[in-house]
Amino acid sequence: MRLAEMTTDQAAAAVRTAPLVIIPVGAQEQHGGGMAMSTDTVRAIGVADRVAERLAGRAVVAPAVPYGVSPHHLAFAGTMSLAPATFMQVLRDLIASLRAHGWKQFLIVTGHGGNNAALSVLAQEYLREDLTFTWTPLTEIVADLISGVSEVHGHAGEAETAQMLYLAPELVQADRLEPGATTLDELSVPARLARRGRGPRLSVGFDEYHKRGVLGDPRTATAEDGRLLIETAADRIAAFADELLSA
Amino acid sequence: MRLAEMTTDQAAAAVRTAPLVIIPVGAQEQHGGGMAMSTDTVRAIGVADRVAERLAGRAVVAPAVPYGVSPHHLAFAGTMSLAPATFMQVLRDLIASLRAHGWKQFLIVTGHGGNNAALSVLAQEYLREDLTFTWTPLTEIVADLISGVSEVHGHAGEAETAQMLYLAPELVQADRLEPGATTLDELSVPARLARRGRGPRLSVGFDEYHKRGVLGDPRTATAEDGRLLIETAADRIAAFADELLSA
Amino acid sequence: MRLAEMTTDQAAAAVRTAPLVIIPVGAQEQHGGGMAMSTDTVRAIGVADRVAERLAGRAVVAPAVPYGVSPHHLAFAGTMSLAPATFMQVLRDLIASLRAHGWKQFLIVTGHGGNNAALSVLAQEYLREDLTFTWTPLTEIVADLISGVSEVHGHAGEAETAQMLYLAPELVQADRLEPGATTLDELSVPARLARRGRGPRLSVGFDEYHKRGVLGDPRTATAEDGRLLIETAADRIAAFADELLSA
Amino acid sequence: MRLAEMTTDQAAAAVRTAPLVIIPVGAQEQHGGGMAMSTDTVRAIGVADRVAERLAGRAVVAPAVPYGVSPHHLAFAGTMSLAPATFMQVLRDLIASLRAHGWKQFLIVTGHGGNNAALSVLAQEYLREDLTFTWTPLTEIVADLISGVSEVHGHAGEAETAQMLYLAPELVQADRLEPGATTLDELSVPARLARRGRGPRLSVGFDEYHKRGVLGDPRTATAEDGRLLIETAADRIAAFADELLSA
Amino acid sequence: MRLAEMTTDQAAAAVRTAPLVIIPVGAQEQHGGGMAMSTDTVRAIGVADRVAERLAGRAVVAPAVPYGVSPHHLAFAGTMSLAPATFMQVLRDLIASLRAHGWKQFLIVTGHGGNNAALSVLAQEYLREDLTFTWTPLTEIVADLISGVSEVHGHAGEAETAQMLYLAPELVQADRLEPGATTLDELSVPARLARRGRGPRLSVGFDEYHKRGVLGDPRTATAEDGRLLIETAADRIAAFADELLSA
Amino acid sequence: MRLAEMTTDQAAAAVRTAPLVIIPVGAQEQHGGGMAMSTDTVRAIGVADRVAERLAGRAVVAPAVPYGVSPHHLAFAGTMSLAPATFMQVLRDLIASLRAHGWKQFLIVTGHGGNNAALSVLAQEYLREDLTFTWTPLTEIVADLISGVSEVHGHAGEAETAQMLYLAPELVQADRLEPGATTLDELSVPARLARRGRGPRLSVGFDEYHKRGVLGDPRTATAEDGRLLIETAADRIAAFADELLSA
Repeated sequence: MRLAEMTTDQAAAAVRTAPLVIIPVGAQEQHGGGMAMSTDTVRAIGVADRVAERLAGRAVVAPAVPYGVSPHHLAFAGTMSLAPATFMQVLRDLIASLRAHGWKQFLIVTGHGGNNAALSVLAQEYLREDLTFTWTPLTEIVADLISGVSEVHGHAGEAETAQMLYLAPELVQADRLEPGATTLDELSVPARLARRGRGPRLSVGFDEYHKRGVLGDPRTATAEDGRLLIETAADRIAAFADELLSA
Repeated sequence: MRLAEMTTDQAAAAVRTAPLVIIPVGAQEQHGGGMAMSTDTVRAIGVADRVAERLAGRAVVAPAVPYGVSPHHLAFAGTMSLAPATFMQVLRDLIASLRAHGWKQFLIVTGHGGNNAALSVLAQEYLREDLTFTWTPLTEIVADLISGVSEVHGHAGEAETAQMLYLAPELVQADRLEPGATTLDELSVPARLARRGRGPRLSVGFDEYHKRGVLGDPRTATAEDGRLLIETAADRIAAFADELLSA
Repeated sequence: MRLAEMTTDQAAAAVRTAPLVIIPVGAQEQHGGGMAMSTDTVRAIGVADRVAERLAGRAVVAPAVPYGVSPHHLAFAGTMSLAPATFMQVLRDLIASLRAHGWKQFLIVTGHGGNNAALSVLAQEYLREDLTFTWTPLTEIVADLISGVSEVHGHAGEAETAQMLYLAPELVQADRLEPGATTLDELSVPARLARRGRGPRLSVGFDEYHKRGVLGDPRTATAEDGRLLIETAADRIAAFADELLSA
Repeated sequence: MRLAEMTTDQAAAAVRTAPLVIIPVGAQEQHGGGMAMSTDTVRAIGVADRVAERLAGRAVVAPAVPYGVSPHHLAFAGTMSLAPATFMQVLRDLIASLRAHGWKQFLIVTGHGGNNAALSVLAQEYLREDLTFTWTPLTEIVADLISGVSEVHGHAGEAETAQMLYLAPELVQADRLEPGATTLDELSVPARLARRGRGPRLSVGFDEYHKRGVLGDPRTATAEDGRLLIETAADRIAAFADELLSA
Repeated sequence: MRLAEMTTDQAAAAVRTAPLVIIPVGAQEQHGGGMAMSTDTVRAIGVADRVAERLAGRAVVAPAVPYGVSPHHLAFAGTMSLAPATFMQVLRDLIASLRAHGWKQFLIVTGHGGNNAALSVLAQEYLREDLTFTWTPLTEIVADLISGVSEVHGHAGEAETAQMLYLAPELVQADRLEPGATTLDELSVPARLARRGRGPRLSVGFDEYHKRGVLGDPRTATAEDGRLLIETAADRIAAFADELLSA
Repeated sequence: MRLAEMTTDQAAAAVRTAPLVIIPVGAQEQHGGGMAMSTDTVRAIGVADRVAERLAGRAVVAPAVPYGVSPHHLAFAGTMSLAPATFMQVLRDLIASLRAHGWKQFLIVTGHGGNNAALSVLAQEYLREDLTFTWTPLTEIVADLISGVSEVHGHAGEAETAQMLYLAPELVQADRLEPGATTLDELSVPARLARRGRGPRLSVGFDEYHKRGVLGDPRTATAEDGRLLIETAADRIAAFADELLSA
């Protein structure tokens, strides 16, 4: 199922039997005082593997791209960011390789919202090529399942921490989890404008949101919540892929 | 208020008095059988001017970029599209010019949703520069005011046509307006997946949605609806800008 | 005749009936104390429309590119310049779009001399492609009609002001027109070398020519002179296009 | 020691205590009928981790780049290659991020010889910047320890298989290992010229060497041989890094 | 005087004594049946050396770039063309190197008109940098001295052949010189439009002008004519440089 | 034999009779106190011509590229370096031109080791195109013939000076030759690490090796040694080319 672990002969067979290639993309970026910087990569892989399992042989998973577009976290040590143009070119090269082998359907699973804009641009570029390019965020597609969280929540907050407690508890240092920004009132004007929903768009660095770069209170997260989010996300993405593969 | 009509001396004065530059960006692309291909540019200019009026001297409006990212409409004659990389570079060059004159706050008003992804990438790139880059879509920020429309609606549909009837009725050939896709049931599987809300993302060409490339029924549009959408969008964007300028 | 105002259906018809696409390109740059910064765009559109009229249905006019290559004016507030590479890429993208719809003949009308070098490079690039790329300056092709002007004249001087008085008098603030450099003697050595005709080439910023960036004395311009220049330019360009279309 | 597993706080501390960042780079490419396509990535990580251990706190290891420059293996299904320019830009972006956090010394450990040329170019580019860029191949630096191998050996051959048997035996399907090209005589003229040592350089695809893309006979490899190669490589690289850090 | 022949110590001295660097640029392209394809490079070097001599120690000459922008000659075997973007980047890199050593004044002598557009673009780019970039064509600056030539003349015609007979007669095979296009009447419509003076611009390949790619009749050329053109060109360029250096 | 001196007709014939194009590439860079900065170009041309002679009509020689990748020498006045990307693009453009004329086999002879990395990258890029790209260094392929030199030797040392005394003695100022670094002991730690053979790779500027940028003692060089190196290199390269052409 994982291309990294296959031999080339197994890949040659998979071109015929598994028409969908899932490419997990993550990030190497700060996730507060208690979570590993690979959090988004770990989550992308976790969901990608589960989607492939649900597709039962109709999909393979490529090696994860462990770096993403993270300029908004560069104020925090250890964050490593690709420029959007670089990130896009990596995916173009990988997809061209796979296309040359005969694959025509691609699903990018991103664990990092900072990759969304670049993925959207790629989707436009691929519109007129002979392949199907799809991509999906994670937490956003199960947002309806998140409850009991602080007014401001998101990066390194309740939902991401819950997912990590489920997928890779060894990468969560529970005693170092600490709340970040939790209410709109405590935000600066630019940060508050940046959190608005459907209005004009302003992006701010995560140090502008909170000195620790965290949105929400990760201390309330549980592995059980994480299980619900991860498994439901996998269900929904697999249903989408199934519909696409059957079209 | 419009940089195009100013002399350089007036611009020099505006650097001091009008700290915000609004750049309208549109598209040259098909808008069905009854609307001009400049629809998105016309709407972007219409709103940009109104926002600047509301800001009463604190903003200037740059010449509109009349081309956008429109690969999804290239199946229809007359559509002219910039690659995302080109569109981004145009804005980078324009903003660099304005920054050199002393301006530091920028608001891009896009009349075309196809520009959103590129604008989002730009917003990431500008995060760590000494300027404020904001952007806004139009119809999306007044979506709560749209009612009585078909299940599927959007491009060249009720809301866009209403806006044009209000802003530039001479560019609407009412007798040639015709419905496009109006229900999810009539869509192909890929098209339906592409219309889903928060799930995985698939982009399709507008010829995949409907042979006429229209979403919704533009025949029901009224100039009065358009007035509400346009003036409210201007109100909301101006309020956002006002908050930003006062920060 | 204008693609911006056409529907896609009208464009589809025009591909067959109007084999030539005219793309006006201008600039957003200082034009002295009395003229609007959009002067070059206004003049390009004015001539492009007139050429299309003379071609009586055999040409369409694309939306004008309102920005050009203007580094030599960046010392003056309000000037917005595209890098030559950006300007070229914009035209490549637009022509590729039109070529995909079936058009094969293109005429760029530039109101701004700063665009000439980039257009010349593009002309070289298109030499071996299956399309005809032509371009034209404005004032230069009617230089024989200019008389009674100061020794040094050109940018924002007699001829350009005359054209604007004819095409868009509302963008000329007559009481603010003022002479710039008018004699070679008053120029610095680099500026004088830059004005030489056929010798070695030196480019200087327009602030090097004169503190107001003006060459000549715009106060002597008349709308009647402008009419002669604009209409003759349109005549000559249309004759050229006619010959090309008949080949 | 691994940046992927650290929190940002731990990274901030490491900037001060661990001045060297090791970045493992590998490849996703065919390794014959019995080895996983991630072989080069696995080996790069294996050595990088061991080098960091030997440096006892003076180095951190960044997430591995699991894709490399592999055009010579694209004839084999499952190979995914980055263009050299893409691969270089990825490393430039990552190093720029780390440089911004304060790190100034970088060691790229490549498990894939196809990355060498691009790394050599990067080394030239970094010559005049305020950082130290070093890189190392793996097998080549312990070539003196390899004996008893076939005349032609290398990719997916004795030494690489031995290393994998030591590092990740679960990724070796021993019963599917099979010999590739083992003697110069059986090579085509171009392939033989490409194997020459110090003469003119010719590159050929690995399908030109052998239909299975293997050089040598992997069946003779042992985990014990692999241990010697891997541990000695780590020793030598650590000694190099130690000397550099002490300079 | 020639940087190629100097040692680095001599170059270090020249930075102080010879503030102008002359870079000859040519082309490798067809010049009809009787002239060497290096004609434009030979002429550029010939004039560059003579200009440097006249400047008596105040200028050095860099190694000639023997390739230029020649897409219009690619229909003829042996022509080797750089894309305009490549040609420009070569000059940017060379000038950046020289600028780093302390030189600030640059004069490009081009023997090939196909390089003019790219040089004009470069001149715009350098406008706002701390250096002086100038360039010069050859034949064009002594056009007033050319007489008794055919109605159509230019590439590989009377004047270029004369220059080569003076500078490098061994590269002219006199018995193979043959006339190309000599009258406007014999040209195709596009070719004739391309030869027009100040009107709209059309570029055509030189195979469109004439099957031999020659403009004019090279058989009438004399070395004496060539001497006049070359030496006068050197005089005029040196006078220009002298004026610039004295400013 | 030299494309620069051929007419286009001769080139057209050569496409059929001389299937190999040799392109010499050199450098403009410091070579110590006694040798001309064009040393690497002179040597590349010298060997390229000799290889073509040995191939007796089966090869042509293109004009030499007189600039290479020389960032490691930029600390020394007069060095002019192309960025690796520029150098590669030059060769891509030249080869594309020649490929269009029908040539399919290419041999780059580089006199400068700084070009090796870029040439290796190009070799990878050309792997899957319909042409044969080969390249060769000079001194390295006759390293077995070098003896009696200092412990540290190389750039501008015994072997290069010998070659120049043989090929172009007028470019060697014998009385200004002086020893540079000759023993490992006198090197700084980074410089010593950079000279190591097969271990990890570190590149240093040549000012780090020695204040004069010389490796070895050029005073011991003789023209006779140079003859041996140059003629043997030509022999070996010609034998390689012969084998390739006969394949």
